[in-house]
Amino acid sequence: MPQNKAWTLASHPTGWVKEENFKLVTSAAPQPAGGEVLVKNLWLSLDPYMRGRIGTAKSYAKGVSVGEVMVGQTVGEVVESRHPQLKPGDKVLTQLGWQLFGVTQEAIKIDERGAPLSYYLGILGMPGLTAFFGLQEIGQPKPGETVVVSAASGAVGSVVGQLAKIAGCRAVGIAGGREKCDYVTRELGFDACIDYKAEKDLRGAVERACPKGVDVYFDNVGGEILDTLLARMNLFGRVVVCGLISNYNATEPYRLQNLMAVLVNRLKVQGMIVFDWKDRYGEGLAALAGHLARGRLKYRESVVQGLENAPRGLIDLLQGKNFGKQLVKL
Amino acid sequence: MPQNKAWTLASHPTGWVKEENFKLVTSAAPQPAGGEVLVKNLWLSLDPYMRGRIGTAKSYAKGVSVGEVMVGQTVGEVVESRHPQLKPGDKVLTQLGWQLFGVTQEAIKIDERGAPLSYYLGILGMPGLTAFFGLQEIGQPKPGETVVVSAASGAVGSVVGQLAKIAGCRAVGIAGGREKCDYVTRELGFDACIDYKAEKDLRGAVERACPKGVDVYFDNVGGEILDTLLARMNLFGRVVVCGLISNYNATEPYRLQNLMAVLVNRLKVQGMIVFDWKDRYGEGLAALAGHLARGRLKYRESVVQGLENAPRGLIDLLQGKNFGKQLVKL
Repeated sequence: MPQNKAWTLASHPTGWVKEENFKLVTSAAPQPAGGEVLVKNLWLSLDPYMRGRIGTAKSYAKGVSVGEVMVGQTVGEVVESRHPQLKPGDKVLTQLGWQLFGVTQEAIKIDERGAPLSYYLGILGMPGLTAFFGLQEIGQPKPGETVVVSAASGAVGSVVGQLAKIAGCRAVGIAGGREKCDYVTRELGFDACIDYKAEKDLRGAVERACPKGVDVYFDNVGGEILDTLLARMNLFGRVVVCGLISNYNATEPYRLQNLMAVLVNRLKVQGMIVFDWKDRYGEGLAALAGHLARGRLKYRESVVQGLENAPRGLIDLLQGKNFGKQLVKL
Repeated sequence: MPQNKAWTLASHPTGWVKEENFKLVTSAAPQPAGGEVLVKNLWLSLDPYMRGRIGTAKSYAKGVSVGEVMVGQTVGEVVESRHPQLKPGDKVLTQLGWQLFGVTQEAIKIDERGAPLSYYLGILGMPGLTAFFGLQEIGQPKPGETVVVSAASGAVGSVVGQLAKIAGCRAVGIAGGREKCDYVTRELGFDACIDYKAEKDLRGAVERACPKGVDVYFDNVGGEILDTLLARMNLFGRVVVCGLISNYNATEPYRLQNLMAVLVNRLKVQGMIVFDWKDRYGEGLAALAGHLARGRLKYRESVVQGLENAPRGLIDLLQGKNFGKQLVKL
């Protein structure tokens, strides 16, 4: 029987996550019960939402308790099966978390021929679907409108901007650092990108990058950037509240002052989580796969090697050090 | 020729409005040009939005400049007509502002037999339509849900709560003072009303009044009350941002801290102004008049006597001293 390694939660972080909030434990790999498969994990996805799961504040899903294995979406290979539809060697998308092996009844078989396995954790997974449904269903971009997205080089933001271009919009990114901004404009084809770390006058930068104002703001960060964008929204603008990464590690939340813009410009500010469209994932995946196949969507991954480095990878992600979709190769 | 009296703006207020921000001027009544009527105003509506028009901040409509006659909706009687469809004696709904006489091409003939003339400035006017469209189109209440409305005894709030009851919802008001709260529950039929002036623990009071949480919050005040309600909203709750009266007189806007609730509970927070539905006023008026005729809507007015007292009436309104729809009888 193979040996399992797993990261468990050692303590709930306050403020920034530290490596000591996790503990690596070793045990025998579990045995599959009837209906289950034993899966060897190949890829682990690291995502900003994980900060919410390990904190003490209320989030949209059950949190991880101290001593439990850290949660996360995974791609792996079936090594032993007592599941009626799966056999050893099948590649599967699962939620087995930060460990080398796991057993589950809930494994979705995926096809290696269509796309690299890791894509099912990114552009053909939750981040891609988040971008697709958030932009289409809440943002509702019309040709000629201006769409701004923060964390523009990230797994969600990069897809939002490219979908906005496909929809005939002006796409403007916000990202931290020259390298990310160059990637967003030169490789992903956004019309402009604002480097919020270098820019002293964020408001002025938004005005210059969006001469016709902002119709859709897809927000992955919250805080001051959201506040600044609220004041630049056009009449009947839409703000997709997808992530508030700037708040996740804050002990005191940022306090928003530009609410008056919501009234004056009749804005719609709406929160979203991709699970809300789970009955329509097929539609989203078909659209994303079609754009990928036609070369209309570009995609980049940031890979950390080895389970041991998962905590460091999450910390880097929360600090914006990643570049594209953050993964751990197990 | 009759003598006219008019309140003009003497200076833009900073913080609370003062009587000295207005100046009463006397002149000859104007003569109607071709296509115009000369109207003797009978009723003047006072509304919270007026604070936005006389301030220096951007609002959703053109502001009043120093020296201009103060704006406002009016009901009056035609005294002289060069308008093809109107004749002396006709009662009309107009936007002639704070003055005894005015000329206009834009006068809507109203029917005294259906309802008292002043109702066209309230329950059958902009406040009633604001309540109707804001609740129906953004709030979208379903039977069994809980609807909370602030400024619950006011011209808009009183209608929102009663329409919520008609829709089969639990209606909870927020108002300032025992007398207003008693009116809201005993006369208007709300299920509960929170006296925010007496209540030390607003959050606890909302929890007690809304044991199943809040599905729709119709916000007329903004500030701390909005912030508190955001944290009590149910999954997929809707917040109608209709007025931010608490901000209108503030020199520094309140800074909202519970934005995380928008993400976690996938809330929709949407700004509105009744003009957005101007093509559908007929539908709203028919519904409101129908409810009135069947005795399902109750309505109360707060009347100030004489044009001279208009500034005082507006100041009292902005301080929450009115009780029901605020009017000036000219």
